[in-house]
Amino acid sequence: MIKENTYFEGNVKSLGYETKEGKSTVGIINPGEYKFGTAQKEIMHVIEGELLVLLPETENWVTVAAGDHFTVPSNASFSVKAETQTAYLCQYR
Amino acid sequence: MIKENTYFEGNVKSLGYETKEGKSTVGIINPGEYKFGTAQKEIMHVIEGELLVLLPETENWVTVAAGDHFTVPSNASFSVKAETQTAYLCQYR
Repeated sequence: MIKENTYFEGNVKSLGYETKEGKSTVGIINPGEYKFGTAQKEIMHVIEGELLVLLPETENWVTVAAGDHFTVPSNASFSVKAETQTAYLCQYR
Repeated sequence: MIKENTYFEGNVKSLGYETKEGKSTVGIINPGEYKFGTAQKEIMHVIEGELLVLLPETENWVTVAAGDHFTVPSNASFSVKAETQTAYLCQYR
């Protein structure tokens, strides 16, 4: 089953699926700023576009370009800013 | 706007978005075999999982693993087989 997820009034959408290593989603983030909370560790890969990311317990936004990734521990929150529509892969591990 | 696409009775779903270079989609293919037609050149990247691909005017299925891609010219058709849920990026160029 391919699970459809919509957040922030349709500004973030994703499709959920299963892999041998755990759940993953691929999704799109519209231009804007969004704050997410994690239940599991999340490995976020930027597929196309670019994100500015504020990781937990940090004060500096870092740029994550296509091909790069960042990791957020479980039970934490992080923020992202997008200036263009950005595609991502999120691995819940 | 993030466009939601569903094909083959929900066995293939994708999310469409815009980039400076043209339209792209990220999507999921369920286990099974599917035939697609192209209107534009398509560059298909496997993000997670694996596909067996029958390119136009060929007789041998080739394996395209995560991290690899294949290209299909416009106005052609190609077939894919998936054994696990597979995530892809498609660039229409």
